[in-house]
Amino acid sequence: MRSSHVWSASGLLTPEELEITAPISDATTILERIKRKELTAVQVVTAFGKRAAIAHQLLSCLTDFFLEEALIRAKQLDDSYLKTGELVGPLHGLPISDHMDVAGHKSGSGFSGDILDPAPSKHGSIAQVLYDAGAVFYCKTNLPQAIMHLETYSFWGQVVNPYNTLLTAGGSSGGCSALISFGGSPMSTGSDIGGSLRSPAAACGLWTLKPTTLRVPQGSGSSPVSGADSIVATFGPICRSLRDINLWFSVVLGSKPWLHEPELVSIPWRISTPTSWSGSNQTIRLGVMWHDGVVLPQPPIRRALKKLVDALATTQAFEIVEYSPFKHLEASELAHELYFVDGGAHIRARAAATGEPILPLTEWAITLPAVKNHTIDELWHLNLRREALRREFLQHYNSQEVDVVLCPVGPGPAPPLGTAKYWGYTNVWNFVDYPAAVFPTGLHADQLLDVKDTTIRTWMSNADMAISTSYDPKDFAGAPLSLQLVSRRFADETVVQALREIAKVLPLE
Amino acid sequence: MRSSHVWSASGLLTPEELEITAPISDATTILERIKRKELTAVQVVTAFGKRAAIAHQLLSCLTDFFLEEALIRAKQLDDSYLKTGELVGPLHGLPISDHMDVAGHKSGSGFSGDILDPAPSKHGSIAQVLYDAGAVFYCKTNLPQAIMHLETYSFWGQVVNPYNTLLTAGGSSGGCSALISFGGSPMSTGSDIGGSLRSPAAACGLWTLKPTTLRVPQGSGSSPVSGADSIVATFGPICRSLRDINLWFSVVLGSKPWLHEPELVSIPWRISTPTSWSGSNQTIRLGVMWHDGVVLPQPPIRRALKKLVDALATTQAFEIVEYSPFKHLEASELAHELYFVDGGAHIRARAAATGEPILPLTEWAITLPAVKNHTIDELWHLNLRREALRREFLQHYNSQEVDVVLCPVGPGPAPPLGTAKYWGYTNVWNFVDYPAAVFPTGLHADQLLDVKDTTIRTWMSNADMAISTSYDPKDFAGAPLSLQLVSRRFADETVVQALREIAKVLPLE
Repeated sequence: MRSSHVWSASGLLTPEELEITAPISDATTILERIKRKELTAVQVVTAFGKRAAIAHQLLSCLTDFFLEEALIRAKQLDDSYLKTGELVGPLHGLPISDHMDVAGHKSGSGFSGDILDPAPSKHGSIAQVLYDAGAVFYCKTNLPQAIMHLETYSFWGQVVNPYNTLLTAGGSSGGCSALISFGGSPMSTGSDIGGSLRSPAAACGLWTLKPTTLRVPQGSGSSPVSGADSIVATFGPICRSLRDINLWFSVVLGSKPWLHEPELVSIPWRISTPTSWSGSNQTIRLGVMWHDGVVLPQPPIRRALKKLVDALATTQAFEIVEYSPFKHLEASELAHELYFVDGGAHIRARAAATGEPILPLTEWAITLPAVKNHTIDELWHLNLRREALRREFLQHYNSQEVDVVLCPVGPGPAPPLGTAKYWGYTNVWNFVDYPAAVFPTGLHADQLLDVKDTTIRTWMSNADMAISTSYDPKDFAGAPLSLQLVSRRFADETVVQALREIAKVLPLE
Repeated sequence: MRSSHVWSASGLLTPEELEITAPISDATTILERIKRKELTAVQVVTAFGKRAAIAHQLLSCLTDFFLEEALIRAKQLDDSYLKTGELVGPLHGLPISDHMDVAGHKSGSGFSGDILDPAPSKHGSIAQVLYDAGAVFYCKTNLPQAIMHLETYSFWGQVVNPYNTLLTAGGSSGGCSALISFGGSPMSTGSDIGGSLRSPAAACGLWTLKPTTLRVPQGSGSSPVSGADSIVATFGPICRSLRDINLWFSVVLGSKPWLHEPELVSIPWRISTPTSWSGSNQTIRLGVMWHDGVVLPQPPIRRALKKLVDALATTQAFEIVEYSPFKHLEASELAHELYFVDGGAHIRARAAATGEPILPLTEWAITLPAVKNHTIDELWHLNLRREALRREFLQHYNSQEVDVVLCPVGPGPAPPLGTAKYWGYTNVWNFVDYPAAVFPTGLHADQLLDVKDTTIRTWMSNADMAISTSYDPKDFAGAPLSLQLVSRRFADETVVQALREIAKVLPLE
């Protein structure tokens, strides 16, 4: 049963508040309505605040809630608009949920020790840009312990999927994704070092773009491994539409963050507004990667991918070819090794500081066979292996002659709680640092359509065997089916332009 | 006595060969003459080959010399041009000296053990781009032990300055800089992680631009610390004119190296040809940094900087302001620490493999107080210190509201052999990764003009005291006086555009 039906049954929201927060209403729509004075910021923030409160009771998605502060801010924005006739910026009055640094509210990395640390005295760099553009912060969302699960389970509780509470909402941004999917927020910002934007967006039927690193500011939250830089996290939006992705990047990169953030590249967002997107008339070469050579996707994902490819074949926008995977297992495993070159010592120390137990998915991540406490000499050798594999991967990518790659986001729909252990479909793209978007196809898992495979085949890996044999179509009732679109480094805008063409055939039915 | 006068006295070059190789004739001129069929590639390569052979006898600048192979290549280029009427590329017939990977010729990092390693089977990535554009390789040039001196002394010998053989030619690219300055080469490629392009270009009166990292391919030669990436080296040209800098970057970035080199940013060179440079008519805000707050430059450098600023004040191109230095000592020392986070173990091992002694400047570099064999935990803390200081530095840079910064390249002209121990004027810009060019002012050290300071002042540092008190104007007779121009990350083209305006008042007299 979809827990989100509770929102209307509860009777706590007015019909107007239900309409404001309805997932069909994306951030762009809400902002247009505020601009046209059909809605005030106070109305919008009130509506999302109420729905967020309900969401948290059902989904364990929040770690902080400060609606009174948000309403004061919303009132100031309304007053300013009334007085000056000018919006303060392109996000005027938009409630944004966040797990990054927001002034005066504690941040964390999913450890109980986080609450002993002082709250940041100022906004993180992205939060400041969003705030300056008119955003209203009103809650902070749950993260998994160490921010390193593709689920969201911490001492705050276990976030469950609004479509099916036996499934995970994904992670690490499962808190905000569950919240947005439930209607408790129109947009959030998250980070991604192995799938943390894409896994929850896929699990909850939302949109995201993990951009190339060096484009969007880092350092806007807590990390359990501060200073580690062998694989770098990147930040992006989780939201309800493609145009909201574009909105977020227009605002964040429109602030020219490279003038203040020393690590960033000075490349502006090369799409100004949705309406000015140039139809280049050039056919986009779209490579379909049916599987990653390591784990065959479960039946619902294969169905969704096939159905989308069939639909795209009827359009003029794409030339569709096959994309062969290349060393995904090696890249994914090396990424896991590079996450924890201290052998997980920092994470164990963080938990030990308060006596908090290491959760099973944390233990799994820091005891993978490759994870070791390395010396500097070993780290340099790992860096060389990383650079060599990235180079080989790029040569392979070039050989495929594609503009974008369409592929699964994971081996299945949102997995049953506690079972998300194959990261390869997402963390390969962190390893090579290619931009990767996730979008909902509009399809959902269906036990009649997505029957278990009965044909015998050779397993590609142990993970393949485990994921195939454990598949039970009954587990996934109602789970949204999402897919991933990838391009080469710094071709973030290519992903968005291609998604625009894909969106024309969505939702699939 | 300027050793380079030997070229004509030797009688080994014909008058035409002397003219072809004369330093006034930059690469662009040579290429134009080949294009107009006034010269053949064979003539040009022969002339530079002969002059290089003389240079090496006097300056110890080469480690390999393969003129026969080069002449075969030059002949092929001539034949192709004769047959097709088309140049193979924008560097058709240009002899380029190199210390990076060239197929079939041994590379190294200044250790005797290098010669036990096999020669690379293919060109390094930059060398391949230059080769494809028509360049002819004919020699490889000397490097200091470990490539980590601002001089050039290895088991191959000690490179001396062609203007004054008691002075260093700088380093690590002292071999090619001495060669170019002597007339034995029109252009070379080198790397820079602490000043290795800029120190020798300044010492030898040449032009260079150390670009922002991530723009030009790495991995084109040997490194004694492969896999270390706390401070990243970057590659650029050493040449005889500003337009040759522009030529090199046009060719290298025109090859779109980011399509093949996974670490690179896809920003093209935003100046197409010298003649299409747009005069923006905007005044350039030029900040003058008279000293770095650590070491006061010696009198000749102060004279050159003052004279250039006076000359620029008479033009309309610049608004000249003062630029205050910010934490240069801290940045420079942290850079030194980050070079050798293994405490120098790799370098000691490399020398020990053949029983080669550690040279004094190598020993100095790896036994600075901050250099230690770090753990991963310590490395992560160092990375955080680096990021915090880079951020502070950028805030300071922004507060100065300048487009470019004009400053010394070092505390003095080319120093007496064995004494180059203050890296702060160059490695600060590696630490923050700002593009930095070096250019000759046209002035030279002059013992009558550049008298020793007699006024008593408070020393800014121990290095300041040592460099001021040891100054003897007689040491520097004839040494070229060069300066440095810097801008913010990825503003490489801004440096070149501003240099174009500066070049209008050069040479100073």
